[in-house]
Amino acid sequence: MSERSWAVLTDGYTTVRNAKTAHGVLRYARDPVVAVLDREHGGKTMDVVMPELGSTAPIVASLGDARALGATALLLGVATPGGWVPDHWREWMLEAVDAGMEVANGLHRFLTEDDDLVARAARSGARLWDVRRVPEDIPLFTGKSLEVPQKIVATVGTDCAVGKMTASLELVDAGQQTGTRCEFIATGQTGILIAGGGIAVDRVISDFLSGAAEMLVCGADPSAEVLVVEGQGGLWHPAYAGVTLGLLHGSAPHVLVLCHQAYRTAIEEPPFTRLPPLVDMVRVYEEAAATVRPARVACVSVNCRGLSDDDARRALGAIEDELGIPAGDVFRGGSGKLWDAVAAGLAHT
Amino acid sequence: MSERSWAVLTDGYTTVRNAKTAHGVLRYARDPVVAVLDREHGGKTMDVVMPELGSTAPIVASLGDARALGATALLLGVATPGGWVPDHWREWMLEAVDAGMEVANGLHRFLTEDDDLVARAARSGARLWDVRRVPEDIPLFTGKSLEVPQKIVATVGTDCAVGKMTASLELVDAGQQTGTRCEFIATGQTGILIAGGGIAVDRVISDFLSGAAEMLVCGADPSAEVLVVEGQGGLWHPAYAGVTLGLLHGSAPHVLVLCHQAYRTAIEEPPFTRLPPLVDMVRVYEEAAATVRPARVACVSVNCRGLSDDDARRALGAIEDELGIPAGDVFRGGSGKLWDAVAAGLAHT
Repeated sequence: MSERSWAVLTDGYTTVRNAKTAHGVLRYARDPVVAVLDREHGGKTMDVVMPELGSTAPIVASLGDARALGATALLLGVATPGGWVPDHWREWMLEAVDAGMEVANGLHRFLTEDDDLVARAARSGARLWDVRRVPEDIPLFTGKSLEVPQKIVATVGTDCAVGKMTASLELVDAGQQTGTRCEFIATGQTGILIAGGGIAVDRVISDFLSGAAEMLVCGADPSAEVLVVEGQGGLWHPAYAGVTLGLLHGSAPHVLVLCHQAYRTAIEEPPFTRLPPLVDMVRVYEEAAATVRPARVACVSVNCRGLSDDDARRALGAIEDELGIPAGDVFRGGSGKLWDAVAAGLAHT
Repeated sequence: MSERSWAVLTDGYTTVRNAKTAHGVLRYARDPVVAVLDREHGGKTMDVVMPELGSTAPIVASLGDARALGATALLLGVATPGGWVPDHWREWMLEAVDAGMEVANGLHRFLTEDDDLVARAARSGARLWDVRRVPEDIPLFTGKSLEVPQKIVATVGTDCAVGKMTASLELVDAGQQTGTRCEFIATGQTGILIAGGGIAVDRVISDFLSGAAEMLVCGADPSAEVLVVEGQGGLWHPAYAGVTLGLLHGSAPHVLVLCHQAYRTAIEEPPFTRLPPLVDMVRVYEEAAATVRPARVACVSVNCRGLSDDDARRALGAIEDELGIPAGDVFRGGSGKLWDAVAAGLAHT
């Protein structure tokens, strides 16, 4: 059933935050990762260098070794400053393209604007997949998303990088385990690589932003019962709040899941806006959603990264006391509880 | 001082809403309109066919007649369905380009993507100005707009097409009349044509939306004391609310002016969302602005189109009673009162 077998290029960045896309794909992608390409760690396996990912993929130092392991696609899994690509990465990309391998790229700079790559891909039949490239036929929002037969769940964040994609994927898994047919709706580059499709909504022309979200929910698998829409940004991050709101309106959710990092009190990028109290953030999201369809925040997915189990438990308890709704950390066994809250919320719609 | 003398093409649409851009330019543009191009009304003057615009521009039936009146630039002043351009308009455009006239276009479809026009413009030296084309170097929002020396006023709407651009322009005029150096910051195609520059923020890639607004306020005339930022959309119009919020955050206003049409209770396009009470809309805008900088709604610019003077007075009175802030209609002498409220609001910042 797999479309491809990934070789994930993280060379020199395997264990750092720049490789967030690689880490997401290693943890969640439907298509198997048969090799990680990093000259520094070649010969090891991923469980040795990053046990928390739950991947045992072998690390190799050359594209030839990755191909010998069955790789059919090369993923640029690292966000480099300004989309810069080192020369030896480009050599690997050219080698992959000449061998007919698919090359997937989540960077802002597109492979399909590199004439040499495009010409060589045309010769070999290789596919160049610019994950952030958006469809050209996105319509304006019209409200059709209100009429899709599926129930729609949206993850919304108190900030960027709090775990909206992870929460969405874990909720889908938890829902599937209860026998509910759930589909993950990807709206960012890592999610799209994991799902095999989606729209990078932050690349859409502003006028068509909520239209893009509507297009995604209207185009979902008709056999799915619940769509879980990956949120973007946060309403208190002024660089991205417009994206957050357009995505929320366009996807017309029935239920919201608030995603938060325990003890984060301000956004982590300039201008370092202070976050309002959680109870106000819940109210503002519910009020914003209600413009299209009434939707309650059913639960809080809390990222307790770096906390001891005791501290995490205390953080979750404090949030539950403050808001009166369930809170859980999907990395500490909380997915089932969060899904139950979502399912209960959906039952009332 | 004028850069150009306009011939405004409204052929067949002169008096209808499709010609909104032409009407805005006729009423407010700094550069003079020396002719309106419409075969139906050729020989009349604009004060005969649309007295409310306050323009006496002659209407002509050919581009030659417009040129004889001194026109140096041709404006496509009509929004046609899908950006479609009738054959005889294209003939006029080609004739203008061959004569070295500038051609300005506010449609989504760009002149600069028409190879024939581009080639002929290159030969004659004519400028093709696609007003909606946005700069390619828009940065991400960083918060620099918080540091500009000018005071910033933003118009925000309860819906689209309630008069945000008009209110902004009238406030600039009213401010100038009190001796305050005001600059109009254009964010939509008509405003850009009137001001001679700006960014059509709804055409910006979502990720850079608030960065575009920041770029506009950071790039304003340093000698201006007050910047009046033209708002877009409305937070209760789900097709455009993301644009509204990104623009609001990026421009970091000190004071807001709420723009509303008297008695409008729902947005006028699908999905015809009901508007919340005015008091809630004021609160939501103030709360949204506060993410970047605290800003109060100083007054309400009310569009009383179609109401008798008595009914308009009653509508304004009811809004003042409801909100406890001044309300005025700029078309019925209200600009000075609104400006006074803005100036008082700015004095507290």
